[in-house]
Amino acid sequence: MAETAIIVGAGSGLSAALARLFHKEGMRVALAARNPGKLADLCTETNAKAYACDAGKPDDVAALFASVAADIGSPDLVVYNASGRARGPIAEIDPGDVMKAITIGCYGGFLVGQQAAKAMLKTGKGSILFTGASASVKGFKLSAAFAMGKFGLRGLTQSMARELAPQNIHVAHFVIDGGIGRAGDPRANERGPDGLLDPDAIAATYLQIHRQHRSAWTAEIELRPWVETY
Amino acid sequence: MAETAIIVGAGSGLSAALARLFHKEGMRVALAARNPGKLADLCTETNAKAYACDAGKPDDVAALFASVAADIGSPDLVVYNASGRARGPIAEIDPGDVMKAITIGCYGGFLVGQQAAKAMLKTGKGSILFTGASASVKGFKLSAAFAMGKFGLRGLTQSMARELAPQNIHVAHFVIDGGIGRAGDPRANERGPDGLLDPDAIAATYLQIHRQHRSAWTAEIELRPWVETY
Amino acid sequence: MAETAIIVGAGSGLSAALARLFHKEGMRVALAARNPGKLADLCTETNAKAYACDAGKPDDVAALFASVAADIGSPDLVVYNASGRARGPIAEIDPGDVMKAITIGCYGGFLVGQQAAKAMLKTGKGSILFTGASASVKGFKLSAAFAMGKFGLRGLTQSMARELAPQNIHVAHFVIDGGIGRAGDPRANERGPDGLLDPDAIAATYLQIHRQHRSAWTAEIELRPWVETY
Amino acid sequence: MAETAIIVGAGSGLSAALARLFHKEGMRVALAARNPGKLADLCTETNAKAYACDAGKPDDVAALFASVAADIGSPDLVVYNASGRARGPIAEIDPGDVMKAITIGCYGGFLVGQQAAKAMLKTGKGSILFTGASASVKGFKLSAAFAMGKFGLRGLTQSMARELAPQNIHVAHFVIDGGIGRAGDPRANERGPDGLLDPDAIAATYLQIHRQHRSAWTAEIELRPWVETY
Repeated sequence: MAETAIIVGAGSGLSAALARLFHKEGMRVALAARNPGKLADLCTETNAKAYACDAGKPDDVAALFASVAADIGSPDLVVYNASGRARGPIAEIDPGDVMKAITIGCYGGFLVGQQAAKAMLKTGKGSILFTGASASVKGFKLSAAFAMGKFGLRGLTQSMARELAPQNIHVAHFVIDGGIGRAGDPRANERGPDGLLDPDAIAATYLQIHRQHRSAWTAEIELRPWVETY
Repeated sequence: MAETAIIVGAGSGLSAALARLFHKEGMRVALAARNPGKLADLCTETNAKAYACDAGKPDDVAALFASVAADIGSPDLVVYNASGRARGPIAEIDPGDVMKAITIGCYGGFLVGQQAAKAMLKTGKGSILFTGASASVKGFKLSAAFAMGKFGLRGLTQSMARELAPQNIHVAHFVIDGGIGRAGDPRANERGPDGLLDPDAIAATYLQIHRQHRSAWTAEIELRPWVETY
Repeated sequence: MAETAIIVGAGSGLSAALARLFHKEGMRVALAARNPGKLADLCTETNAKAYACDAGKPDDVAALFASVAADIGSPDLVVYNASGRARGPIAEIDPGDVMKAITIGCYGGFLVGQQAAKAMLKTGKGSILFTGASASVKGFKLSAAFAMGKFGLRGLTQSMARELAPQNIHVAHFVIDGGIGRAGDPRANERGPDGLLDPDAIAATYLQIHRQHRSAWTAEIELRPWVETY
Repeated sequence: MAETAIIVGAGSGLSAALARLFHKEGMRVALAARNPGKLADLCTETNAKAYACDAGKPDDVAALFASVAADIGSPDLVVYNASGRARGPIAEIDPGDVMKAITIGCYGGFLVGQQAAKAMLKTGKGSILFTGASASVKGFKLSAAFAMGKFGLRGLTQSMARELAPQNIHVAHFVIDGGIGRAGDPRANERGPDGLLDPDAIAATYLQIHRQHRSAWTAEIELRPWVETY
């Protein structure tokens, strides 16, 4: 039977590549975003259904999972791909912006991870994959809010992995350590060939992690371009 | 001239030991807590002033720093010592409790750190010290909310340290990896002598980090009892 | 054209699984061990050639790469899978045993990595994969020599990855965090199904890392059984 | 009674600062180096005795500890401060140089740590302090040999700390993340005031770690100049 995948924080870039790959692999795909209107073309292309969902709102996230279950089935694979930033000197960033960045950066990851766990504990299997960044393991200056959200998300995934892996639910965290390329990306030329992360290449690794044999599961993996300085 | 210290998240245990040591060293001490009434004895003992402050509320934190500046001077040393927990299986913990734990765990750290930075950037010096835990570097099962807050706080401190150190403001993160002993602690017997972290011993290291020569600053240090398993 | 793979530290377990998978994928396989006699059956099964090589001896390692190049071609994929242990209290372990453990644990990794790098810098491509362990990232008591070798090997891989990745050579480090199962393993029953790492499952991930698109390379990945406590 | 301190890898810079501070604190100081002749002035200044010792040779290290015990008493504090480098592209560095770097970088740390442990297990107390570097936690390109030694040394200290702390022996690892200043250092001007680590400032922290109350011991601490980029 076909698997059901939910991608939260869907847009262009990585989530679109994930949607295409999951569709190609025969999965039924649900896409969630605050503004699902922008997903129309991607839905057509991947035979997916789009859902309006603010990942930082408990009711929105609960409703998303209820709707997807009713529409296309209980999830086998859930990807949390949303994030929020608020750049600036620590003395100047707006507290409201920081709270928004934390809310979408890690609280939303919790809300989605919780609903995914509830569903998968019933079926006894599944994968929950979280998208991290360089800022998940290193707090850069002028980027405190992003660091707080990404560090927090990593802490969440470690806690969830320790609880859920022995219940046959695979939780994994991806440290995307570099810029993700987009069509017509102005940075592409200066970086040289394959100098930005190709969304399809990232998606391929997400799928492999989802399909790993449970005797050898990965809880954290890092991905970066071959020419990246780190 | 005497230094001014602010301890946010004051109560018994570590913050009381910090207050006593800072007072003994000649500092003027301000204590902040949601319920400052419990601090009356400590205030008397350390000649400190207590302030009501919910560390998760921007206005409260801004008011705290304004009051302290008016009452006893601009801060030279700020310690963020508040934290929040919400234990339980990921599928069962209440989202509202999780948001509270994140808010006090890391958003409050940001609010306090921001006000401290604003004040210290004016005077051109100071130390901002954050209290972490084992959960700052390892996400334990059934403790996702605490891990999110503590990981997030660590990300904040790294970002702040990279921005503020070159401006002569020392930001440091303490990984307290073990139980802190309290008077009459029931765990003391089973742990044996010095088997729980002595608050006075922790406080001694906080003071040393505050006083480090800036050519050799510490951004992170871990503390645990000699008999701790880790 | 078929790829050439060299597995150093070949025996049963993981290296045998790697040899089988690489052979199945059409690669020409070379196996190196101090005592290659034990590899006869595996050579037959995987159409591989076995070489005598003490990985801790510069001349042995240089001769290995020269012979393999002459016999089956320049390497596209090299796996360093040897390790050495010397357990015991720090005050009691024999210094000679410790030196042996370091020599095979990390110096041999350097010798093999260096020869692999020399060959791949000529062809302009290739993967060099190093097998780590729990002890690569945590120094356990009574296991200092193993920790020194595995930590050292991890340091080597990070340095090599930073130098060689921009030259199109993929260097990756695997943290194998658990026991690897073997046929008739007495631990299998108490651990339950898939409670030990299946060598074939590990090998599958090694191959995926080798085949990653260079825009999204992994420099470190961890693998452990779903039921592992960590 | 006065404490006895042994500094292995003594020269100018940090070890001289340690010798001066330990002497000032009333300790009896022993200095060990391959060429002790260079230590004559420092010995006079700190009332210390110098010993010839190649830290990578088991017999030398055993003889050192025997001599010091006979001359000034069983050690209360041992510092391992030796290290070895071999810079260059991975394909070009000489294997002999790499082995030397590993030998002095981590094997010597083991030999010294083992003798220190033997002595301290008899007296039931003491501190063993290891000097690490940026390369202890990050393997830089063109610096594989140094990374192997420093990573290995860190693995050793973790293993020793887990074994020996519950036996009242304090093992700690210092990550010195920046350049150490020396008299007339040409880098001093470009770095600005306090831009290089002041050896006396580092030494002050070593002493504090040695004197920590055992209920709150540090196993790892990082030190870097306020203006350091990292």
